[in-house]
Amino acid sequence: MNRGDTFDLKTWITHQSARVEQALDRWVSVTAESDLEHQAPAELMAAMRYAVLDGGKRLRPMLVLAAFESVRSESAPMPSDDHSASDAAALRAACAVELIHAYSLVHDDMPCMDNDVLRRGKPTVHVQFGEASALLAGDALQALAFELLTPAPEVFAAPLQAQLCRLLARASGCAGMAGGQAIDLASIGVVLNEAQLREMHRLKTGALLQASVMMGAACAPASPAALAALQDFGAAIGLAFQVVDDILDVTADSATLGKTAGKDAEHDKPTYVSLMGLSGASAYAQELLTQAQAALCRSGLTDVRALQALATMVVQRAN
Amino acid sequence: MNRGDTFDLKTWITHQSARVEQALDRWVSVTAESDLEHQAPAELMAAMRYAVLDGGKRLRPMLVLAAFESVRSESAPMPSDDHSASDAAALRAACAVELIHAYSLVHDDMPCMDNDVLRRGKPTVHVQFGEASALLAGDALQALAFELLTPAPEVFAAPLQAQLCRLLARASGCAGMAGGQAIDLASIGVVLNEAQLREMHRLKTGALLQASVMMGAACAPASPAALAALQDFGAAIGLAFQVVDDILDVTADSATLGKTAGKDAEHDKPTYVSLMGLSGASAYAQELLTQAQAALCRSGLTDVRALQALATMVVQRAN
Repeated sequence: MNRGDTFDLKTWITHQSARVEQALDRWVSVTAESDLEHQAPAELMAAMRYAVLDGGKRLRPMLVLAAFESVRSESAPMPSDDHSASDAAALRAACAVELIHAYSLVHDDMPCMDNDVLRRGKPTVHVQFGEASALLAGDALQALAFELLTPAPEVFAAPLQAQLCRLLARASGCAGMAGGQAIDLASIGVVLNEAQLREMHRLKTGALLQASVMMGAACAPASPAALAALQDFGAAIGLAFQVVDDILDVTADSATLGKTAGKDAEHDKPTYVSLMGLSGASAYAQELLTQAQAALCRSGLTDVRALQALATMVVQRAN
Repeated sequence: MNRGDTFDLKTWITHQSARVEQALDRWVSVTAESDLEHQAPAELMAAMRYAVLDGGKRLRPMLVLAAFESVRSESAPMPSDDHSASDAAALRAACAVELIHAYSLVHDDMPCMDNDVLRRGKPTVHVQFGEASALLAGDALQALAFELLTPAPEVFAAPLQAQLCRLLARASGCAGMAGGQAIDLASIGVVLNEAQLREMHRLKTGALLQASVMMGAACAPASPAALAALQDFGAAIGLAFQVVDDILDVTADSATLGKTAGKDAEHDKPTYVSLMGLSGASAYAQELLTQAQAALCRSGLTDVRALQALATMVVQRAN
């Protein structure tokens, strides 16, 4: 994509999503097409594929690939082998983040958590395959994310593999996504102030969204200043995503969301809407978008159009 | 330990266990002692610590450290920095494997799986903390295992970090532990032949025991012949462990086991005892021990006493 062109997010997403879907279809698989030499039992793989394939906005993979593009466009020309290794790393990072996201939804929907029966317009995994299979499929998806990031060192350099594992493990564990879910769990019926609510969401959804940006950026050489700015960008859109989620939980219906609407209020969960009101929350989402755009300006990166468009999409989305 | 000494497994285990317990106590923690800069919520961390600390035989960490010692004793003298980096890597690998094992027990005990209320003589995690917390604690422990393996590259070399993640992810995922559990789940009340039973256990418990050996061996330079032999050793003791587990499920009482005895028969699960009878299963365990010892001879490694003693312990243990 040349920098002078008008940027068409829809075309970009269509192209990148197709790559991600194809890669996920190949890697979450027991067929010979998978290069992971899996001998996974067919019934487990069926639940894993059901959880991952043919659904979802793929926002996290898009952030990985957009951040990668923005950083790579600045890099000095590389030998073609390095170029294709970078590409391979970014695609694997994109899929690995999505596997973590998918596993978290599977476990989150289980009866002992949110007890949700509908996800992306389909029965949730435990409804379709049973609770035990849902539990195991989630566990196996988390492991598979780290498998994807650690192929033979010929695929892409081992130090980058370690760096991607480092970013992903921290974003998904007790000081990231799982930690945020634990706070969420503990806060039902509890009055949180804005700082506490922000901390919960920074961990629960923000950490993985931010890690998506940083993992993409890690796949090509970037200046410390660019990385610092992208970190801020990731934090802003991570938070914006959750604010908009809270807004949509009130304003959208279940069919549009592809999941049960109005659940937060029903469960007496603290949200940005309960804290700020609907118009306050909307204004806050806009402010976060402005912060994200400012961070992109600060990055010194010249081609940030995909990141910029994704940030706008996060705030203006309808589901 | 000099090669001429009589090897005292009990002393060796006491020393190594103390290192592992101390390390786990530091790393599964929100205190300043942790070098992971965790800001994990206290309630989640409490469930994680309950699942991990002060319990278990630590067999997997012992295998990691024993394999590391056997391989390191062959290595050319290293600069002291490399030496301490290797030590650090092996200790982290030992703890990471234990975290994976611990998470699998937490999830395995949940009502939708084995619905077990007693583990290591204590109430299981979901009994103590609730199901949702048990689910999240297990998820977070898995992520923490990969965090431990990916510290700053100054702690130990990034290519080794990637290699350890590679081994651990494959052993714990759909073509390893989680896959084996899925087969186990699907095989209740089903008649399996010996080959099918062996395949289930190769994945369910064997893969992680074998990975323990290979992760330890990866932390110091080893010849391809030594690695191949250690791979065979790991496969033999992995299987032996399960055969003995099946025997103990019949012959030991719950107090000795620290978990509910007689469960396999009660759940009509296929076991080596149901397939081969008690004496047949005992003979098979002995045969596997012989295979493991033969593999150690083949390895060409001269100090394999800890591995040898652990293999014997696996077969002769009472719980």
